[in-house]
Amino acid sequence: MKTISTCVSPQLLPLHTVEDKVAIVVDILRATSSMITAFAYDVASITPVPTLADCRMLKEQGFVIVGERGGQKVDGFDLGNSPFEFMDHQLNGKDLAFTTTNGSQAILSVTDAKTILLGSFLNLSATAEFLRQQHESVLILCAGWKGRFNIEDTLYAGALAELLHSDFTYEDDATMAAASLYQHASSDLTGYLKKGSHAQRLAGFENHRDLEFCIQKDKFHLNAIYRNGRLYKV
Amino acid sequence: MKTISTCVSPQLLPLHTVEDKVAIVVDILRATSSMITAFAYDVASITPVPTLADCRMLKEQGFVIVGERGGQKVDGFDLGNSPFEFMDHQLNGKDLAFTTTNGSQAILSVTDAKTILLGSFLNLSATAEFLRQQHESVLILCAGWKGRFNIEDTLYAGALAELLHSDFTYEDDATMAAASLYQHASSDLTGYLKKGSHAQRLAGFENHRDLEFCIQKDKFHLNAIYRNGRLYKV
Repeated sequence: MKTISTCVSPQLLPLHTVEDKVAIVVDILRATSSMITAFAYDVASITPVPTLADCRMLKEQGFVIVGERGGQKVDGFDLGNSPFEFMDHQLNGKDLAFTTTNGSQAILSVTDAKTILLGSFLNLSATAEFLRQQHESVLILCAGWKGRFNIEDTLYAGALAELLHSDFTYEDDATMAAASLYQHASSDLTGYLKKGSHAQRLAGFENHRDLEFCIQKDKFHLNAIYRNGRLYKV
Repeated sequence: MKTISTCVSPQLLPLHTVEDKVAIVVDILRATSSMITAFAYDVASITPVPTLADCRMLKEQGFVIVGERGGQKVDGFDLGNSPFEFMDHQLNGKDLAFTTTNGSQAILSVTDAKTILLGSFLNLSATAEFLRQQHESVLILCAGWKGRFNIEDTLYAGALAELLHSDFTYEDDATMAAASLYQHASSDLTGYLKKGSHAQRLAGFENHRDLEFCIQKDKFHLNAIYRNGRLYKV
């Protein structure tokens, strides 16, 4: 049977094998949510790049450049990392280059995987459907927060694991824990994410508008797949 | 207010500060549970050592040597890592040297902490009491499993966090997630730990006797503290 495993931080990735797997890269707040939104608004491609300097070079080649560091848009960049910035029909057909604190690096860390997809609540069911219809095992890579475990990416891992439960077995404790955590919190994800000390980190976002948007399920029915350095809609 | 943070794998420890904190090192299956049991049977001290060779050298100095690798007792060692092996009044007053796959290394990785205690369900409330009566913030270090996230250590972190909730704030997402996971599973910890694919790893234990013993709460009212290279009962 196909398996699902979950890597709760990119720093733990060396403990996992990716070569024979579909890697789902997740950075709910906000990189992968924003990328999926951009594809819903029909950008042609998204190139994840590691550094601000790499991104600036691509601007000269006609890319729309997207840069975020520590939750803030970077000076000289066309767009920051709020999904609302990508709800713009002028982006139709454009090529984007994207560098963010956690998400872009996470995508680039699994380029050895057989297939790479983006994970977000916004296209959760579309991803589950894709995974059911192919034959490989799955590794969910949580981008985390500055290398640490984070809750929203783990909740996504749990939501995806639950959807796949009848077709896949949970390969590791992290997947089992993520699924339990999602069961625990799913009746009120927003309330759960806002409560307690956790809200301190999220308060970095101007208001909770991005958070509320990013945890909506199945707003879009599409997937984003990585091929030869770029992400495309499928 | 004092804070609690949780490090879900020793590999993520460089992302945390320990110097100003009490570190609680947890390896529920089975190192810290066995060590607490040994103190309940009045061993004089336990010296955690990194390698089998270090341990063998201490045998020549009169130590009782305890060695486990991959869940199995090591040839030539006096004891393995099942808590039942330490329920022996002949160990009264003895000095033990202890090397295990995950637990010993985890203790040795936080020697910069202000104080180091062992964490186990067996002495959960005693540890909570100790922590309430002192003034430092707390870092729970889960020994994990071969560097990965593991569920029983995380459940312990959640149990301890819940007990401390009125006196400490949760500093990170991992603590919040651990507390939720514990709430989710606490009505039937044994059943939860045995279910699903997780049982495959635990099946390495001859039967579930060790598991059932190690998740009993408050069987012993003592703490184990690390000072100058050794653990002592307090």
